[in-house]
Amino acid sequence: MNNEQSAILLLSCPDRVGLVSRISHFIFERGGNIINLEEHVDSEEKTFSIRVEWDLINFSLKADEIENALLPLAKEFKADWRLNFTIKKLKVAIFVSKYDHCLQEILWRYSQGEYPIEIPLIISNHTDLKPLADHYKIPFHVFQITKENKVEQEQKEIKLLEDNSIDTIVLARYMQVLSSNFVHQYSNKIINIHHSFLPAFAGSNPYKQAYDRGVKIIGATSHYVTEKLDEGPIIEQDIVKISHKDSLKDLMRKGRDVERLVLARALHCHSEHRVLVRGNKTIIFS
Amino acid sequence: MNNEQSAILLLSCPDRVGLVSRISHFIFERGGNIINLEEHVDSEEKTFSIRVEWDLINFSLKADEIENALLPLAKEFKADWRLNFTIKKLKVAIFVSKYDHCLQEILWRYSQGEYPIEIPLIISNHTDLKPLADHYKIPFHVFQITKENKVEQEQKEIKLLEDNSIDTIVLARYMQVLSSNFVHQYSNKIINIHHSFLPAFAGSNPYKQAYDRGVKIIGATSHYVTEKLDEGPIIEQDIVKISHKDSLKDLMRKGRDVERLVLARALHCHSEHRVLVRGNKTIIFS
Amino acid sequence: MNNEQSAILLLSCPDRVGLVSRISHFIFERGGNIINLEEHVDSEEKTFSIRVEWDLINFSLKADEIENALLPLAKEFKADWRLNFTIKKLKVAIFVSKYDHCLQEILWRYSQGEYPIEIPLIISNHTDLKPLADHYKIPFHVFQITKENKVEQEQKEIKLLEDNSIDTIVLARYMQVLSSNFVHQYSNKIINIHHSFLPAFAGSNPYKQAYDRGVKIIGATSHYVTEKLDEGPIIEQDIVKISHKDSLKDLMRKGRDVERLVLARALHCHSEHRVLVRGNKTIIFS
Amino acid sequence: MNNEQSAILLLSCPDRVGLVSRISHFIFERGGNIINLEEHVDSEEKTFSIRVEWDLINFSLKADEIENALLPLAKEFKADWRLNFTIKKLKVAIFVSKYDHCLQEILWRYSQGEYPIEIPLIISNHTDLKPLADHYKIPFHVFQITKENKVEQEQKEIKLLEDNSIDTIVLARYMQVLSSNFVHQYSNKIINIHHSFLPAFAGSNPYKQAYDRGVKIIGATSHYVTEKLDEGPIIEQDIVKISHKDSLKDLMRKGRDVERLVLARALHCHSEHRVLVRGNKTIIFS
Repeated sequence: MNNEQSAILLLSCPDRVGLVSRISHFIFERGGNIINLEEHVDSEEKTFSIRVEWDLINFSLKADEIENALLPLAKEFKADWRLNFTIKKLKVAIFVSKYDHCLQEILWRYSQGEYPIEIPLIISNHTDLKPLADHYKIPFHVFQITKENKVEQEQKEIKLLEDNSIDTIVLARYMQVLSSNFVHQYSNKIINIHHSFLPAFAGSNPYKQAYDRGVKIIGATSHYVTEKLDEGPIIEQDIVKISHKDSLKDLMRKGRDVERLVLARALHCHSEHRVLVRGNKTIIFS
Repeated sequence: MNNEQSAILLLSCPDRVGLVSRISHFIFERGGNIINLEEHVDSEEKTFSIRVEWDLINFSLKADEIENALLPLAKEFKADWRLNFTIKKLKVAIFVSKYDHCLQEILWRYSQGEYPIEIPLIISNHTDLKPLADHYKIPFHVFQITKENKVEQEQKEIKLLEDNSIDTIVLARYMQVLSSNFVHQYSNKIINIHHSFLPAFAGSNPYKQAYDRGVKIIGATSHYVTEKLDEGPIIEQDIVKISHKDSLKDLMRKGRDVERLVLARALHCHSEHRVLVRGNKTIIFS
Repeated sequence: MNNEQSAILLLSCPDRVGLVSRISHFIFERGGNIINLEEHVDSEEKTFSIRVEWDLINFSLKADEIENALLPLAKEFKADWRLNFTIKKLKVAIFVSKYDHCLQEILWRYSQGEYPIEIPLIISNHTDLKPLADHYKIPFHVFQITKENKVEQEQKEIKLLEDNSIDTIVLARYMQVLSSNFVHQYSNKIINIHHSFLPAFAGSNPYKQAYDRGVKIIGATSHYVTEKLDEGPIIEQDIVKISHKDSLKDLMRKGRDVERLVLARALHCHSEHRVLVRGNKTIIFS
Repeated sequence: MNNEQSAILLLSCPDRVGLVSRISHFIFERGGNIINLEEHVDSEEKTFSIRVEWDLINFSLKADEIENALLPLAKEFKADWRLNFTIKKLKVAIFVSKYDHCLQEILWRYSQGEYPIEIPLIISNHTDLKPLADHYKIPFHVFQITKENKVEQEQKEIKLLEDNSIDTIVLARYMQVLSSNFVHQYSNKIINIHHSFLPAFAGSNPYKQAYDRGVKIIGATSHYVTEKLDEGPIIEQDIVKISHKDSLKDLMRKGRDVERLVLARALHCHSEHRVLVRGNKTIIFS
């Protein structure tokens, strides 16, 4: 698990000889001890991706100096990269409507210390889940959304997010579609849970669609939100078996369990900086 | 498991009071002992479905008299029904092309005595799998298919199937689409395996589709063949998890394992007369 | 699912001809409509088991008359049997210590209406989980247990359970062993969750045992409590995969998820009267 | 997947700063391109483990020079290590008795090219599976074993294994216990499949043990053979769900499916040099 004092580099670039050596040498010569390193070479696309985490205890650079020191290497490699520090926890806002199962799951895990994150606030278009937020002592903000006020309300939401330095947004069964303006501002930072194994049953009422089709499994998919509904990069998916004995209501009940676990796992990966988006796909470092 | 000397009734009808009592009494008063009984009431559609298996050892009717004796009851209930006898094993023909994994799996299980069926013949549009058929000593018939000869070849195939009193056809990765004429003649008797979790990735190259979409699970679906490609009643589905490390070739390798197990299980249910088709859905009695 | 006005009979007896007919006829001739019926014949032990649920709307007997009416039949069959009514919900007490995950899971599902039960009270040997009980507005009673006061405290607990007409006790990671006197009084009515796939890793610290053995899966088992620790009839089991990357702490974290789901499912079966204990095994009607 | 021309280093040693850098630099300065690298630091035991695979196309050393070149580094690190080349496939002997499912599975996968191995021979104490070996054109040697001739027969087997330069032995439901002399000679090179989720149900008749205990899951475990029966380092485990409906025969049928898949996956890991044994545990590099 993460050390309080470690740095995490996520980097991808065109593959070439010496990348691991150059990166690990950079760390070594400054006194860092590598705790985790995993690399992936996509032999079809000829791209190299790496996640490396190192201990900062005896590292010769201060956290705010590392980015500059890495810059020449990253430039040379033509890399997409980002650097995170375990001491600086992600700030996560959760958006909900009326269903409580996903919020409940995340807040409980959060209370157990499972996530290296802070949750400064919850946003909802309804008041229903305020008591749950209160139980976990997290500020709960209501922004009612109508066709008419949507643009305006989103601006207020973004203001609130910015004031709280929010890094990541979790849509925990938030029943509103965000504007593409909103989505752009938080690219690859909005995690949604869709209650089907995508690409099957995209759009509304996936359990009804599944029931009508007579499938023998139902599922859930957690993905980053893009402008195209339910088509963003997939982080995590899972399923549960069902049978002819299950009514539509049973599907929703069984589906809740897989929804909340899939979303919880996706947030776990994201919060530990183990997700790298390439095109419309993700690399999930273990 | 099935007794050599038992009868299996599959019946569905509009729900009403007394159905189980009437059916079980019919069996009881003729000296039958019920080995398995499972019923299902669809409370939304108000339909009743039952599978009941009873021992014929002390039964007062001969096998060929039971159908007539049941007729008045079935008429009164306005039932869809069929009666099978474990002594009369299903005759199954397997259709294959070049992939051997599904054929291999079924023939091996067949050799273990897992299925209460006979496999009098295998049909293929290629010669590749003849050695495998030979190993298991099952006649292997080749019907090459072209656009031009398709109708004619299918007529020959049907003739062969009829000559061998075939009840059930298994498409074990048979890479041809059967004509709707063929499909009609074997309604709910042709079992296909599609290499995706339907309804996602219907049609051709589902692994390529899955790879391109970046899903985290792949699956397989076994269903009865209807005129609409990949849209028939689903018998069994399952999935396997994948990751960014899996190439398209890995997807095909991992997918093979789930394909053959899903098809094997579907045939298992079908061969024990545990599948009841209602509309475009199935009831799978356990 | 259960109807507000239905009766559920669980019965097992030596197998013989006519059991389903006699039982279903009993229901039919009194105007009952069977909603669910599942039977199981153990062909090795020659025993018959059945769960049958019927609608009481037009039934000619009142609930309190049915037991007497069934008595002659049950006697003739030499049956073990019990009769339940969906209108009379089980009263369940939950015992906890300090871990909240199982309690949290059950109370949340309870709040969703997933269980046809009432939870009149929670008992603990610590005060830690009182806030959680308060959130769900369920009375929380603390009985501190020491070697010296155990007998006495258990007497008080039993008094409290009796005063509240408790039918079922759930040990939701209750870290105390109940006396055999206590266990006898609630035979097949105390549901425990053990944090391993029994019979492996019985006793204390199963995650430590699993970690030291280097297994690749960990699990959880829900069972009825008997005098022999961790050896009672198993209701439900499941596992989760682990790897060398998982520390002992990770095992406990991942194990929590499987513990709470396994216990939740076991309580689901029990609360719907779908569990029949025979010897040291269970029959779980679906 | 493996490249025809790559080297794979498996190494573990006490953890210290600079290990990845030193190893990757060794490869880089000789012109090697790293295809796969995964490391693991056990923070409790303070040990470092790594699997690194690199392309030999432009590597400045010949295969037989690499080991010597690595020696000083390995000595300095106090490392346990081994070096393999994908061009030099493992030579695997399979030991069987009468059950065919595991042998069938391995030979079929082998015929598909799933394993980077050669199977020069099969050894059995019975003649039953000779036809299967013949179908796949693999020499089949029979060594009947009795109490009296065991030592002598094992010597002949070892001679045969040595003559064929066998690296790895797979016990594919071989119903004999190997002598500790034999086991010592092939330490961490003999892969067994045990038909239970160990440590539960070690020893004989695990399905009978499972049936009698009334468990709801059965499993299989693949492990390296050590002197202590069923206690060696575990490579892979999996389970399948069962119910009260399953007879002992059903357990054996369902168990076969999980046995063969678990053994197949264990051999897959082993054959790609992804297993590192540390004490009585394994690290499985993905």
